[in-house]
Amino acid sequence: MQPRSLRIDGRTELIAHLGYPTHSFKAPLIYNPYFADAGINALVVPMACRAEDFAAVLRSFFRLENARGALITMPHKVSVVSLLDEASAAVKVAGACNAVKRLPDGRLVGDQFDGAGFVRGVQRKGFEVHGASALVVGSGGVGSAISAALAGAGIGMLALFDVNAASATGLAERLRTHYPQVQVTTGSNDPSGHDLVVNATPLGMEPGDPLPVDVSRLDPRTFAGEVVMRSEMTPFLQAAAARGCGVQVGTDMLFEMIPPYLEFFGLPATTPENLRSLARLDG
Amino acid sequence: MQPRSLRIDGRTELIAHLGYPTHSFKAPLIYNPYFADAGINALVVPMACRAEDFAAVLRSFFRLENARGALITMPHKVSVVSLLDEASAAVKVAGACNAVKRLPDGRLVGDQFDGAGFVRGVQRKGFEVHGASALVVGSGGVGSAISAALAGAGIGMLALFDVNAASATGLAERLRTHYPQVQVTTGSNDPSGHDLVVNATPLGMEPGDPLPVDVSRLDPRTFAGEVVMRSEMTPFLQAAAARGCGVQVGTDMLFEMIPPYLEFFGLPATTPENLRSLARLDG
Repeated sequence: MQPRSLRIDGRTELIAHLGYPTHSFKAPLIYNPYFADAGINALVVPMACRAEDFAAVLRSFFRLENARGALITMPHKVSVVSLLDEASAAVKVAGACNAVKRLPDGRLVGDQFDGAGFVRGVQRKGFEVHGASALVVGSGGVGSAISAALAGAGIGMLALFDVNAASATGLAERLRTHYPQVQVTTGSNDPSGHDLVVNATPLGMEPGDPLPVDVSRLDPRTFAGEVVMRSEMTPFLQAAAARGCGVQVGTDMLFEMIPPYLEFFGLPATTPENLRSLARLDG
Repeated sequence: MQPRSLRIDGRTELIAHLGYPTHSFKAPLIYNPYFADAGINALVVPMACRAEDFAAVLRSFFRLENARGALITMPHKVSVVSLLDEASAAVKVAGACNAVKRLPDGRLVGDQFDGAGFVRGVQRKGFEVHGASALVVGSGGVGSAISAALAGAGIGMLALFDVNAASATGLAERLRTHYPQVQVTTGSNDPSGHDLVVNATPLGMEPGDPLPVDVSRLDPRTFAGEVVMRSEMTPFLQAAAARGCGVQVGTDMLFEMIPPYLEFFGLPATTPENLRSLARLDG
């Protein structure tokens, strides 16, 4: 079926999608076909914004009257937090923000649902978060978000690893403050013994990237999740699946997180299934 | 025929369409269906930018790596000139700029083709510009552009009128400097005796606007042209047509000017007819 096409006009509201580089952006390929299908006059606009320009670009974007909101991705997810007038609890815990909107009085409010999207996805696949043990590799914006969402969903133990050790220990401290019941450790990316192993690094974006963990130590009963969306089955997920692990691809997290983002922007939401059926990720 | 739909992705290049208000914007409805049909991965994005924010918005937009260019409309057509590093002759004469692009070294270059679009349109309808007499009502950006293009095309006499008299006399001075062979007068909006009468004011945008000239003094042999695009046959054009005048609607100018704008942005151009057949102005 030929998809309904967007009609961009002088009343179209904009959601800036700010990141760098932009080439692997998926959100425009999901939100915009949904907006077209649902007759919502809004548009996700990819904007290739370097780190040094981000503050000025974000502020001037929100001076536009038809700025409905902004989706924030690498490398701005953490730096955006200092530009907010108000941040949700999820942003404060994760130290990262993926969505910004402007209140009627002009203040900028940030929230993030990446972690929630990841957790909704693994739960939908039958993974029992409560009391489980997880290794999250990568303590940047998305790793922090997933860790915070796992903690909020009742995970028992969290092992954090980042090539920048201070990044992992900083996240561990924030988690211990807000979720004292979770046992948090840092310093090892050994996947053995965990119920869930998450790649929250960019490894897998480029051909020839090393794997985020030693997959020979993955137990078949371990569930493997991924944030990289360049390909569905990244080398990490391929290796995990070859060992018999259940897997969650990056786009599962993406489709699961979009309904709460739509609600945040004040737009009509829909199901992840409908979003997936309309998305044009194939081109 | 179902139009081909835009596929906005991480490689889409942006043309910001900056103005305020945006509700009557037509360019997105013309460029974007053409880009979709021709498989050009570019997007005209309407941005509702107030005058006081324009400089910051323009500068930060051009910090984006996927900024291909900007279309500039009311109320920024004149103020943008002072933000350019380089301006075409047309911009210098008209004192107004409608298109900006970034050179590889980062400098911003401006040009404008609105006036050229208007003149191409009336010539295509058989109007002989050379040696004719024209009244141009409105000496802002578009009125200046049309006046300069008419002068460049060999018009004999130009009568300029603006409710802000200084605006008209300023334009007259610039025209006399660059086109000393054209007889330029100011101070009257009496349409009688002219071969061409142009509404280059916003009158006709809002219901109940007064007419730009006393149409009872329009001669049937006079050709009437319009820049307002809210409706095809504005009250001014309706009155002119009722008196037997030939007319050019605002969108004719629009379709004629787009091919040179596409060339300016370094994108594949096409014919005004093809642009009109693809445009989605009806919705």
